[in-house]
Amino acid sequence: MKEEIFAKLKEISGEQYVYSDTETLDHFSRDYTEKLQYNPDVVIKPGTAEEISAILKICNEHKIPVTPRAAGTGVTGGALATRGGVLLSIERLNKILEIDERNLQVTAESGVITEVLQNAVKEKGLFYPPDPSSRGSCFIGGNIAENSGGPKAVKYGVVKDYVLNLEVVLPTGEIIWTGANVLKNATGYNLTQLMVGSEGTLGIVTKAVFKLIPLPKFDLLMLAPFNSLEKAAEAVSAIFRAGFTPSGLELVEINALKIVSRMVDSSIVPVTDDMEAHLIVEVDGNDMDVLMKEMEQIAELLVQFDCGEIFFADDATQKEELWKLRRRTAEAVKSIGYTIEEDTVVPRAELPKLVKGAKALGEKYDFQVVCYGHAGDGNIHVRIFKDGHPNSFGNETVKPILEELFRLVKSLNGTISAEHGIGIIQKEFLPIVFDEAALRLMREIKKAFDPNNILNAGKVIDID
Amino acid sequence: MKEEIFAKLKEISGEQYVYSDTETLDHFSRDYTEKLQYNPDVVIKPGTAEEISAILKICNEHKIPVTPRAAGTGVTGGALATRGGVLLSIERLNKILEIDERNLQVTAESGVITEVLQNAVKEKGLFYPPDPSSRGSCFIGGNIAENSGGPKAVKYGVVKDYVLNLEVVLPTGEIIWTGANVLKNATGYNLTQLMVGSEGTLGIVTKAVFKLIPLPKFDLLMLAPFNSLEKAAEAVSAIFRAGFTPSGLELVEINALKIVSRMVDSSIVPVTDDMEAHLIVEVDGNDMDVLMKEMEQIAELLVQFDCGEIFFADDATQKEELWKLRRRTAEAVKSIGYTIEEDTVVPRAELPKLVKGAKALGEKYDFQVVCYGHAGDGNIHVRIFKDGHPNSFGNETVKPILEELFRLVKSLNGTISAEHGIGIIQKEFLPIVFDEAALRLMREIKKAFDPNNILNAGKVIDID
Repeated sequence: MKEEIFAKLKEISGEQYVYSDTETLDHFSRDYTEKLQYNPDVVIKPGTAEEISAILKICNEHKIPVTPRAAGTGVTGGALATRGGVLLSIERLNKILEIDERNLQVTAESGVITEVLQNAVKEKGLFYPPDPSSRGSCFIGGNIAENSGGPKAVKYGVVKDYVLNLEVVLPTGEIIWTGANVLKNATGYNLTQLMVGSEGTLGIVTKAVFKLIPLPKFDLLMLAPFNSLEKAAEAVSAIFRAGFTPSGLELVEINALKIVSRMVDSSIVPVTDDMEAHLIVEVDGNDMDVLMKEMEQIAELLVQFDCGEIFFADDATQKEELWKLRRRTAEAVKSIGYTIEEDTVVPRAELPKLVKGAKALGEKYDFQVVCYGHAGDGNIHVRIFKDGHPNSFGNETVKPILEELFRLVKSLNGTISAEHGIGIIQKEFLPIVFDEAALRLMREIKKAFDPNNILNAGKVIDID
Repeated sequence: MKEEIFAKLKEISGEQYVYSDTETLDHFSRDYTEKLQYNPDVVIKPGTAEEISAILKICNEHKIPVTPRAAGTGVTGGALATRGGVLLSIERLNKILEIDERNLQVTAESGVITEVLQNAVKEKGLFYPPDPSSRGSCFIGGNIAENSGGPKAVKYGVVKDYVLNLEVVLPTGEIIWTGANVLKNATGYNLTQLMVGSEGTLGIVTKAVFKLIPLPKFDLLMLAPFNSLEKAAEAVSAIFRAGFTPSGLELVEINALKIVSRMVDSSIVPVTDDMEAHLIVEVDGNDMDVLMKEMEQIAELLVQFDCGEIFFADDATQKEELWKLRRRTAEAVKSIGYTIEEDTVVPRAELPKLVKGAKALGEKYDFQVVCYGHAGDGNIHVRIFKDGHPNSFGNETVKPILEELFRLVKSLNGTISAEHGIGIIQKEFLPIVFDEAALRLMREIKKAFDPNNILNAGKVIDID
C-alpha cells in the first residue's frame, strides 16, 4: 500500500489509531474460524462514522480492499482480510448512546459488546434477547452482520427482529439511516433488513436502534436425558405442538456433553452411558405459578419420548452452570479436534431426520459427528472430526460430506446457515440452496451498494 | 397493445382469462385509493406461477407495463395500472397448499383471502396474526406487498415477522424461492425481507410460507374513554412501560367514533360530548386468571390518565361489536368526506406530540383532522377533510399540510407509512424521510430486479 494512503489514514483517525506493526497485523489476521490467517496491510480504528466515511472514500477512490471487523468472534471467516488492504476495526465505536425507557428502545454504536448492552438495559428492567455464545466479547455490529441468534431466539427471535434502524456508512462513503425508529414500517424498500445478515459486504453499520421488551420476571430450567438422539429430536417439536413456547430449547448430544462437563468441571449432570442426548428446556414469564405448571406439563410430555430422570435447576447457580455447559460446548468439542462446525437449520419437526442423516454421514465417511444446538429453532450445529485430519476450508476430503449434508438439509426445506453466516467458508455451497437467478440478484445488490467491490469483497458472494 | 401480444397472452392463460371488455377494464381500473382511475389495456388472470413467468417474459421482451394486483384493497394506488398495459390479477392463485401442523407453518398461494387463511389455520388451533381491516377481502399477496399490520401487530408483529419463504416470479420471468422454511436464516442476503413491502415492484409473489403460532385460548377487551386526546395518547406508552404487552391497543378519536357508531348502529358505546378519544385495549393468553389480573391492572393505570368509565366487553358478541366499530372506522369517516388517510408512525411515547401536531395543522390550514389507529405501535391514521375539497393526490392545497405533517413525524424519529405503503400517492414525500443516497440504493435495487422497468413501474420509486 502506498505511503500516501497511510498518511491520509493517519490524518483521518490520528496516527495512534493506524497500525502496521507485525504484532497488531498478526492479532487482526485471524478470527474464530478454524485456523485461517490473512494479514491486512494496515489496521485502523476509527472513532466516528465520519472518519469511516472518509476512510471508505479514499479506499473507494483507490480501489483498496477494506475488511470491516467487529470482535472477530465469527466462525465463517467474515472478518478476515483475505485480500489484504485495510482492516477497519469498529472497537472504538463502543458507546451506548441512549436507553429510551419511554419507547423501549436503545441506540448504541456498533462496537458495543453484546453483554454490556444486555446488562445496561437489564438495569432498567428491559430485555435485549439476542444472545450468542460469545456475548461476553462479541459486538452488536458483528451480531447485526451475521443476524445472530442464540438460545433465546426460540421464543424471542433473532437480531433482525430487534433492529429498527441503522446508521450505515456505504462503501462510497455516504452515511445513511436505513429506516426509522418505529415498530412498523412500510416506507420504501427495507434497507434495514437487507443490511442485517449482509456480513459487512454492503456497508459498515455504525449505529443501531433496537427495540427492547420488558424483562420477564422469572424463569425455570430443566435438563432432560434421552437414550435416543432421535427421540430427543422428536420431543422438541412435540413441545411446540402442545402449545408451549419455551424461552430456551437446546439439544446436546452426549459426546459433546461429556467433553464440556469435564472442561467446566460440572457435577450436576449425571452423564451415563445409556444416554444419547439431553434437552435443556427453559420457560420464562411473569407468573411463577403459570411457569411451574408449564414446566410440569412439559416434563410429562417428555416422558412420552422415553426421557430419563429430569434434573430441575434449583437456583441461579445451578441455572448458570447448566447454561455454561451449553455455552461452552462449541469451545469444548473444538478443543479436542472437532474443527468444523456446521450451522444447519431445518423446520423443527425435521430435526430427527437431520440428526439421523448427519450421524449416518459420519459412518459412511468414517468421521465422528456430534450434534448440538438450538433445537427449538431447528438449528443444529453439526461438528465432524477425524483424528489427524486437517483444517476443513477447501479440503477436498471434507467437501463431499458437507455437500451431502447440505443437500439433505435442502431436501428438508432447510438451509445451510441459521446464525453463523456464509463468509468465505460456506460460499461455495450457496448454489445448493439458491437458484442461479436468486444468486444473480444478490450479486446485483452487492454491485449496487459497492460498485468497486472494495468492502469485504469475496465474502458471501463473488462479483469478480 | 399489439394483437400479437393479446394472442400470446390468450395462449398462455386461456382465452377465458384474458379480458379487454369495458366492464372488466373499468372494474380493474380502481383500487381503494381515493378516486383515482387508470385503465389497463388488458386484464389477465393466470392460474400458475409458470403462466405468470411466461407473461412476464413476453412483457419484458416487448417492454409492456405490467401491474400486479391482489384484491385491490390498497390505499396508496399500488395496484393501479398507471401506465396502461397488462393488469395481472392473482385472484386464481387461491389455494392453501399445506397446513403443516408438525412445523407450525402454512404454505399458500398469494391470492388466498387473508381471513380464509386465518380461519383455516384456526381450525387446527393455530394463529396467523396479521389482520388488516380489509381481511375479509384482501389477499395475503397484497399483505406481503405492503407489509400489512392490523390491530394484533402490537403484540404479534406484522407480515414480515411471519414470512419465512416466498416463491417469486421475477420481472425477467425467472421463478425463485427467496429463502428456506426455517425460523432462523443467515444464508446470503435477505431476499425474503426485501420482497416484503416492495409493493409488487420487484417481483410477483406466487406462494408464501408463513410461520404460525399456537392460538391463544382467551382474550379480554375493554373500551376506555378519555376527555383529552393527548392524555389517551400518553396512557398508551404508560401501559408498555408498566410491563404489559396488550394484544390490541387502538385509539379512536371521538369524531370518528361518533360517525362509525351511527354507521354500524352500535349502542354499547356511550358517546358523550366531554370525551375526546377512546382506547380499545385487548389482552390475550392461555390463563384467564392472569388475564383478569392484567386487565384490572391496566384499568387502574388508565385511571391515572383521567379516563372515564371503562366499558368491559361481556361476551363474544360485544367484543365483535367493538372490533367492528374499529374496523369500519376508515370506511365511516371516508363516507362523510375525509378522503385522505395518512399512515403516520412514530415511537410510541411520541404519540401525544403527533396527535397534538396533527390537530394544530388542521387549525392552521382550516381543515378538519381526525386521528385513529394502532396506537400501541405508534401508528396513527390521520384523516384530513374540508367541505367541498377535491381529491388529494397531486392537490397543491393539501401538499403543504402533508409535508408539514411528515416533517413533524420525521422530527419525532418516525416515518410516513407504517402499513399502507408508498404506491403512487406518497412517492413525492420519500425525500422527507430518506437521504438521497438511500433513495439511490432503492433505485439501484429496482434496476437490479427489473432492468426494463416493466413491473409496477412508477410505484414506490421512479427509475425513469
